[in-house]
Parts: sequence; C-alpha cells; structure tokens
Amino acid sequence: MSAILTLNAGSSSVKFGVYQVAEEPVLLLKGQVENLGPLARMKLQGGAAEEIGPADHAVALHEILHAIQPALDGRVVMGVGHRIVHGGKSFGEPEVLTERVLAKLRTLEQLAPLHQPHNLAAVYAAQKEFPESVQIGCFDTAFHRGHPFVNDTFALPRKYYEHGVRRYGFHGLSYDYITSCLRHDWPDLYKGRVVVAHLGNGASMCAIRGGQSVGSTMGFSALDGLPMGTRCGQLDPGVLLYLMAQGMGADEISNLLYHDSGLKGLSEISHDMRTLLDSDDPRAAQAVDYYVFRIRRELGAMAAILGGIDGLVFCGGIGEHAAAIRARVLEGMEFLGLAENAAANAASETRIGAGATEVLVIPTDEERVIARSVADALLA
Amino acid sequence: MSAILTLNAGSSSVKFGVYQVAEEPVLLLKGQVENLGPLARMKLQGGAAEEIGPADHAVALHEILHAIQPALDGRVVMGVGHRIVHGGKSFGEPEVLTERVLAKLRTLEQLAPLHQPHNLAAVYAAQKEFPESVQIGCFDTAFHRGHPFVNDTFALPRKYYEHGVRRYGFHGLSYDYITSCLRHDWPDLYKGRVVVAHLGNGASMCAIRGGQSVGSTMGFSALDGLPMGTRCGQLDPGVLLYLMAQGMGADEISNLLYHDSGLKGLSEISHDMRTLLDSDDPRAAQAVDYYVFRIRRELGAMAAILGGIDGLVFCGGIGEHAAAIRARVLEGMEFLGLAENAAANAASETRIGAGATEVLVIPTDEERVIARSVADALLA
Repeated sequence: MSAILTLNAGSSSVKFGVYQVAEEPVLLLKGQVENLGPLARMKLQGGAAEEIGPADHAVALHEILHAIQPALDGRVVMGVGHRIVHGGKSFGEPEVLTERVLAKLRTLEQLAPLHQPHNLAAVYAAQKEFPESVQIGCFDTAFHRGHPFVNDTFALPRKYYEHGVRRYGFHGLSYDYITSCLRHDWPDLYKGRVVVAHLGNGASMCAIRGGQSVGSTMGFSALDGLPMGTRCGQLDPGVLLYLMAQGMGADEISNLLYHDSGLKGLSEISHDMRTLLDSDDPRAAQAVDYYVFRIRRELGAMAAILGGIDGLVFCGGIGEHAAAIRARVLEGMEFLGLAENAAANAASETRIGAGATEVLVIPTDEERVIARSVADALLA
Repeated sequence: MSAILTLNAGSSSVKFGVYQVAEEPVLLLKGQVENLGPLARMKLQGGAAEEIGPADHAVALHEILHAIQPALDGRVVMGVGHRIVHGGKSFGEPEVLTERVLAKLRTLEQLAPLHQPHNLAAVYAAQKEFPESVQIGCFDTAFHRGHPFVNDTFALPRKYYEHGVRRYGFHGLSYDYITSCLRHDWPDLYKGRVVVAHLGNGASMCAIRGGQSVGSTMGFSALDGLPMGTRCGQLDPGVLLYLMAQGMGADEISNLLYHDSGLKGLSEISHDMRTLLDSDDPRAAQAVDYYVFRIRRELGAMAAILGGIDGLVFCGGIGEHAAAIRARVLEGMEFLGLAENAAANAASETRIGAGATEVLVIPTDEERVIARSVADALLA
C-alpha cells in the first residue's frame, strides 16, 4: 500500500495533503503547518491548531511526517508532489525534481522571489525526510506555456523575451483543476470558450479555449492583473518611474506593491474581502468597487481574446463564497450573454444565473492536481 | 479682424494653426517647425520644408510669427491656444495661462517629463512674441477628469492618490473632437456607448457614454495601455523590479520604455506601422500581431466598462489609414455586434462595416478643439 504527499509551501505556511495512490487519488488527510517562525502551529483538517514551537520548512516537514502517520496507517509515501510557482519558459509539464531540474528552478528565484525560494526549501526538506520517495514538481506556470506569443510577450526589445521576461500566467494548477471538472461534468463547455476567475489571496483570470489557456491577466510576476489582498494588480509603469524619482529603492517599492497595496492599500482597513464587505466605511466600499471594476474590465478583455464566451467560472475563496461580488460582476453584462442572479450563493460546483452563457462556481483543488500528477508518475 | 494661433509643442517640433475668430473658427493655415535643434525646418501645409537654421522653441515661435503674416493678412492674433499634455487633477476645462496657473503646471512636469516642459517652453515663447494676446491652455487630461473613481485610481495606499498618482488618461483633445463630430453628425451614437481608438504615434482607447469619458487605457503616464511606436504600453510592474535588480537606473529604464520599446522594440525593425505592414520579416508580423491583440483585448475591456457598445470609432494616423489593422481588430468580434469589413478603407468621416454596432473612421483634429476653446474665450 502506498501513498502520495502533496506540499504547497509559502513563506509562512506549508499546506499538505495525503492521498492513497490510484488513477484518481483518494484523499486521506489534509492539513498545514502555519505561522512558520518561533511559534508555528500544526492544523489538521477539521481539527484545532496546536502549537509546535519554532519551525522552519525543515522542522515543518519533520512534524508533518509524524502527523500523517495515523492517516498513512502503514502506507509508504512513494511520491511527494510540490507546488512550484515558477517553471520558467521550459517546464510545461510536471517534472521529477532531479538535481539538474532543481538547479534550473533555482535560477528562477529572482523571477518569483516571494514564492520560489520557499517552494524549493520544502523540496530540500522533503528530500531529507522522504529519501526513498520520488519528488515531483508541479508548476503554476505550466498550464499557460502553450498560450500564443501575443499573450506571452511585452512590447520590449526582444532580448528581454529571450532572457525570460515573459507573461508566465500563474494559478495554473487551479485552472488545470477547473478544466478537469469541465471536461468531466460540462463536456460541451470544456470544448468551448470559458473564462475562469480565480479570486483568492492571489487573483487572476484565464481565457480558455478547448481546455487550453489562450490568455491571462497575470503576467511576468505575481503582481500584475487583478488587484489582490495586498498586491496592486495592474499598474502604469510610469508610476514606478515616479516612485524611483521620489527616491524609493527597489526593496521599498517591492514591499509597497506586494504587501501594502491592493484591497489593503486602497481601503486602509483590511486585505480581507469579508471585512470590507461588512464595513460601512466609504473607503471599504471604494476598494470593493475597484475590485469589481477590474474583474469586469478584464472579463471583457478575456472575452475579446476568445471572441465571446460560452461560460464563466468563479473559484478561489472570494469566487466561491462572495455572492455579492459575483452578482456585481454579472450586473449589466447581458452583451456577454450573462444574466445577473444576485440570489445565487453556490457552495459547490453549481450553475448560477439563467443567461445563454453558463455561470458556474467550482471550488478549486490545486492539491488534487498535484496528487494526480504524482499518481501518473507512480503508475506509469 | 482677429485671429487665433494654436500651438502643439513637443521635444522636436512645434505644430501650429492659424484660424479666423468665429464661433466655429475658420482655418487659414497649418504648419510646423520640425527637427528643432541645429538644423530646424519650417513646413507649411501643402508646401516643402525649408531649413531655418538652429532653433529652439523661442526661435521657432519667432519664425512662426513671420511665416503666418501672409495668412493673417492684417488680422491680429488675439488669442494663442496651447496643447498642454498635463492638467493634473484640478484642470478639467481650458484655462487662461496666468502666472498662478503656469506655476501649477510647472509642478506637473515630473508627471510628464517628456511632454510638459516643451509645452510650457512654447507658452513662455508665445508670451514674448504675442504679448498682447491671451494665452489659453487646453489639457489632454481634461476630457477624462469626470471619469469615475474606479478608473481614476490604482490599488495603492491612498496617500499616492492624494499626491497625484492618478489615471489621467490623455489624448483628451482628440476624444473631445471625435465626440463633437458624433454630437453633430451621429446624435444617437453620441447619446450612446462608444469606444474611440486613437491610434497614432501615441495610442489609447476611451470608453465614452453620452459624450463623457468613463474609462481609458492610458493611465498615469503616457506609457500605459496600448503599445505605441516606441513606448511599451501595459507592463507588469514586476518587470520594472526585475530591471532594477539587473542594475538599471531610473533614466535607463525610462529611456527603454519611452524610446526603445513598443513596435520598434518588438520588431527590431521600425516604429512605423507602414514599414512593418510592408515588411515580410516575421518579427514585423509579430509586432503587428501584438499591436492588434492589445487593441482587441482593450476593446473588450472598454466594452465591459460600458456594458456593451453602440459604436466604435478609429482615429489617429494608424486608425485612419491602416485598413488592414482595422479589419483585424474587427475580425471575429460578432459578440460586440461588429461585422468585419476588410475592404473598407475610409479616408474621411465614414461608416464602415455592416453590423449592429456602428464602426466609423473620423480624422481627428486636436488643433480645432484648441481653436474652439480660444474662440469661446475671445467671444465670451
């Protein structure tokens, strides 16, 4: 009996899942080590968080190894699947994380400085804790690698494109999962033109035709496109020149755009959509207005890339749970065949609205996409 | 008998127009001093360019004063109207250029370093050459000043908005002219929802409802939105952080994004659309593909802001003359009510296409908008 472990490591947490190996892997346990640092906590699905003391990625992996033993129930972890934010321009499929591949992924750290080093730290830790397991990298950029050149480039001198200044996209594991749901449950839609709005801590939209990415709002970094909890989204490059002229350095600007902007910056209240929707402060309303405006604007842009749409899918925490946001995105979008249905508050894969264009809410599951890739490798 | 002089001063040229004062000013002469520097040239409409030796803005104005005498034919220049790129957050209407107003406009130079200082240099020169005339500033930002907050802001901490980091828009004199044509010749369209694509050396699109700007692709600087001859258009802010990490300074990045990007950067051949359309180099084709892709994408975005469109207007050199570009923008856009009509090569205010949504080509005339503003002031 063998099992799969999936890992999704960020700067402050390591999320994990344990699956029994099967063509469609069977979930045994989910959990996370959160608040990495002096007072980390272990939290298993459905349970309370327990303090585990100081923990970096290596300690977290060691604790995870212990915590999953009851769920493993004698099964051996044969494969560990890692969410790797950046696969660069080469990796369009999951990869066995050999030393050669890891060396290549390290060179991408400067392209995703806030994500990639943590992803790789988890790989090194997992290599030590699970030395007999195959380590598989699953890339958030892979789903977009086949998109057309016009969506892959900026209008810069071509040497920058050659050096890797490309529109990588991101959130690809989520789009991959949503696409697999469409293929299974909505085969006509799968063959058609769909916009997926992944609205979580990070946020982006993807234009998908016949299951293939043809356009995306996120670009070279995790900053571009839709505004996010603390990230700015689309920004005039002239604003960065202006900030530089004000004497701000790269680190200061980076901190501003990654950590102090987005909903948090515009509202001055919170990065959290629930808090903003509950607030009666006019700044909260303005931040929500801006969030909705940008989604609507980019929905039109993605629809233009597709020449019209057959379906719109919401996913991610806000996409799944904020019916008020969904309703405002749909309002007055009859020209896209969308009918507003403010009352629909779907909690699982559900059809909402009554227009000619399907509107679905599908809870995404990036871990399952990783588990499937590991199962494919183990069963091949 | 009195006349109006309009001036549109850039870094390397001063374009001018002479009009007889009337409610609808009557054009007497157009021309420009070009190639400012050691070997400047004077060119009158319909005539050949003549070398006038070394000229800065002041010398150019002095030469213009001489050159327009035959056309003035005894008329006195009572008002000089200036195109001023940046009116900041305060100026939503043309303004008499008092010392107080000029002092305010000087503070905006850092927001439009490549345009504003030249615009103001022409004002100072005109004050000397035409000391008895009223000087009127007409702002490219004014048309957008009434647009909603969601199109005016970025998702940054609010202090930046207060300090003037706003989406000013630009090309407002052109949008103002197009809107005046719609009001006169297409009154139903004027009352409806129209996207105007100003595709010239600079390029942007504007979403207009009932004659009012409600959305724009250009933002804080003249860099954002559509790609241009040498300017990048939309760019992931992460790319600037990456360039800074590569050791590039603000001036170097600014040069790259203003002068070496856009069609020129992506094609490595030319900034000029005619040259690219005539080339059989695959890089030229890719640059044109990208240009069309971005226009189509932003057309969808503007349509979403408007909740669908009743009309689409092309203007600017490329918008007027490049029928191939127009046809490719319209291709497969039936969901917006647009019908492709590749054969239409309109040379003046003309209706093309046969869809439910009107498609027009209207040669823009920013000078006329300036002349009208000066006439309004003189006749008030």
